[in-house]
Amino acid sequence: MPELEIKPVAGVRWGTATAGIKKSVNKKQPPTDLALLEIASGSSIAAVFTRNAFCAAPVLLCREHLTDFVPDSRSSARYCLVNSGNANAGTGTAGMQAARQSCQFLADHLDIKPESVLPFSTGVIGELLPVDKIAASVAPLVHTLDACNWGAAANAIMTTDTVAKGCSRAITVDDIEVVVSGIAKGAGMIRPDMATMLAFIATDAAIAQDDLKQLLDEGVAVSFNRITVDGDTSTNDACVLAATGQSGAALTPGHACWPRFASAVAEVMQELATAIIRDAEGASKFITLNVLHGASTEECLQVAYTVAESPLVKTAFFASDANWGRILAAVGRSGLENLDVASVKIALDDYLICENGGRVDSYDEAEATRIMSRPEICITIDLARGQFNERVWTSDLSHDYVRINAEYRT
Amino acid sequence: MPELEIKPVAGVRWGTATAGIKKSVNKKQPPTDLALLEIASGSSIAAVFTRNAFCAAPVLLCREHLTDFVPDSRSSARYCLVNSGNANAGTGTAGMQAARQSCQFLADHLDIKPESVLPFSTGVIGELLPVDKIAASVAPLVHTLDACNWGAAANAIMTTDTVAKGCSRAITVDDIEVVVSGIAKGAGMIRPDMATMLAFIATDAAIAQDDLKQLLDEGVAVSFNRITVDGDTSTNDACVLAATGQSGAALTPGHACWPRFASAVAEVMQELATAIIRDAEGASKFITLNVLHGASTEECLQVAYTVAESPLVKTAFFASDANWGRILAAVGRSGLENLDVASVKIALDDYLICENGGRVDSYDEAEATRIMSRPEICITIDLARGQFNERVWTSDLSHDYVRINAEYRT
Repeated sequence: MPELEIKPVAGVRWGTATAGIKKSVNKKQPPTDLALLEIASGSSIAAVFTRNAFCAAPVLLCREHLTDFVPDSRSSARYCLVNSGNANAGTGTAGMQAARQSCQFLADHLDIKPESVLPFSTGVIGELLPVDKIAASVAPLVHTLDACNWGAAANAIMTTDTVAKGCSRAITVDDIEVVVSGIAKGAGMIRPDMATMLAFIATDAAIAQDDLKQLLDEGVAVSFNRITVDGDTSTNDACVLAATGQSGAALTPGHACWPRFASAVAEVMQELATAIIRDAEGASKFITLNVLHGASTEECLQVAYTVAESPLVKTAFFASDANWGRILAAVGRSGLENLDVASVKIALDDYLICENGGRVDSYDEAEATRIMSRPEICITIDLARGQFNERVWTSDLSHDYVRINAEYRT
Repeated sequence: MPELEIKPVAGVRWGTATAGIKKSVNKKQPPTDLALLEIASGSSIAAVFTRNAFCAAPVLLCREHLTDFVPDSRSSARYCLVNSGNANAGTGTAGMQAARQSCQFLADHLDIKPESVLPFSTGVIGELLPVDKIAASVAPLVHTLDACNWGAAANAIMTTDTVAKGCSRAITVDDIEVVVSGIAKGAGMIRPDMATMLAFIATDAAIAQDDLKQLLDEGVAVSFNRITVDGDTSTNDACVLAATGQSGAALTPGHACWPRFASAVAEVMQELATAIIRDAEGASKFITLNVLHGASTEECLQVAYTVAESPLVKTAFFASDANWGRILAAVGRSGLENLDVASVKIALDDYLICENGGRVDSYDEAEATRIMSRPEICITIDLARGQFNERVWTSDLSHDYVRINAEYRT
């Protein structure tokens, strides 16, 4: 696997370890399955989590630690302790205890308060986290902390991912280079209702806590909250954004460079989010859904997700079959009131296929099939009833999706 | 294929024909693809249709003809003209014209008004109905009309169905045997929001129009509106219930036998609806979802359909993998407000697997896997927050579902 090119961020270090929690595919070389993100004292941190009611123990504990954290004289550095291979979800009170213990092991080792540690887990649901394996790996995790370890961390947090996901942007602010880097994991159970599976993004700009949270919310809204593989919102979704300030550049929403910086953050998030779709379980196609001229954001998303999650639409894309009737049927059942079907237009890439409630007179099946055979396809659905537009990314439904998810635990 | 045992209903006859609209799998013997249901003068008829906004031309015309029909001196018999192989959906104004022409051919042949004819189509979306083929088949359709042709009709309306679907019930009312018989078709694009694909049910009891509609609505609510294969509501769903009165028994809601008769109608509908799930595209499992103790019917159905349509839950069932965490995750993302996850209980058949937010202490993976390997499995989800219960039937997601839907048009 080629090493990801991810720029270091001053004030951020990653460590990794092999705890034996994640199943080994290649027995000769067990995979790394623990990652530790160190965020230097004085940084701002914002995070968003899954809205699944059965959210995992680490998500509950993250929320608690984010609220309870107060800097003390020892250190105000913060740590994200991430394991792959076990989600510690659906584990009840025993799961909460396991998450607490994991944080305590690291806190004891570093002589910090447990609230300084944010726990993250991803993997199989419903099995108890083997805390002894985490205890035994705390020392190597801390020992390997290094600013250049973003790529190693991207590998350590993978589960059914086939490629590690990470990227960077750099912009100049007040003659200072400011870096935004991030990694993410996720390939299935992807319909983030907050942020997908796990994503960690950091910048060396100085940004106040409230501004950082706003930046995170706006970025997530156009990236992780606009992708779906299977409509299944995970129990563990989390996205963390940290700002260390160690570049020396300070940014506020009033700064001339703020829009450019916010774009850079959103671009990193979109690159990570679309990387998840490109790596979606069994995916052979990358599909962009543009819904135009809806009466509201909500109805644009309603149409987009109904089409994006239709098994019939997804299998047609897998087969490169220009069965646009399935797209039309999905739009029709998406629940929009008083939809004037005669006004709806549907296009594959820039080829208009449907208008006036049927296919265009000039419809050419060969041309439509040629477009459907492309690895990346854009579906545009023009509702012609308002001023709102939305974009969602998804994948097709293939034999491999069924195979991967039928064999997941075996 | 064994002939279905469906009791004739006095006042009802079916004819069938081979028009060449449906693709031939076996070239030596082209399949029948037209069916004609004749309902004798003086009958009551009620029908429900898809709520898909892109509803098919025949659905629009059915609604129009049901409204506009007035008995005249020539005949007040009514006809359902059904073709398989082409849905006449997504066909715009040309599709409406084709549906009108089809009705007119039959009306001309029988010397009746076109409003006496209700058109139904099922098959590929987006292709124009070949009306010339229907015109050429009107004579044989009428010629074959026979009270014993229910089984032949069940075969003629099939598309991706692998078995014909039909059944009967008989009860005694005022010392008279009253029959309820029905046929249905459907295997994919199944998430009826009204009635699935096509179903035709008839009884020889005499029932007033308003009572018949109530009977239909109540029956559909516990049968065709409680099944899902893929969440994809079809453009053509329709369910027709006719009462000829020719048994001599008259029924009103005040009659002592009404509850038993209503149960017989609902049973016929449930048997047809569950037959659709048993024959669902690629299905290897028949899954019943019971959601208990919800705060409303709506939230019970919300949970039931979220679980029933989760690709991850469905692939786990395909694999006989007791990955109950996916059920839990689907319940958690179903959107219920203030769900107390610690109170939720989940059972596979009569084996409790999840309580207090995690699996039961006594959990035995081998036992759970044994249950998951059964061809019919019942999932019970107890929400413990109200007095409402709902039941939904679904199937698993298999390699064959992907294969069938990827190859549908080829």
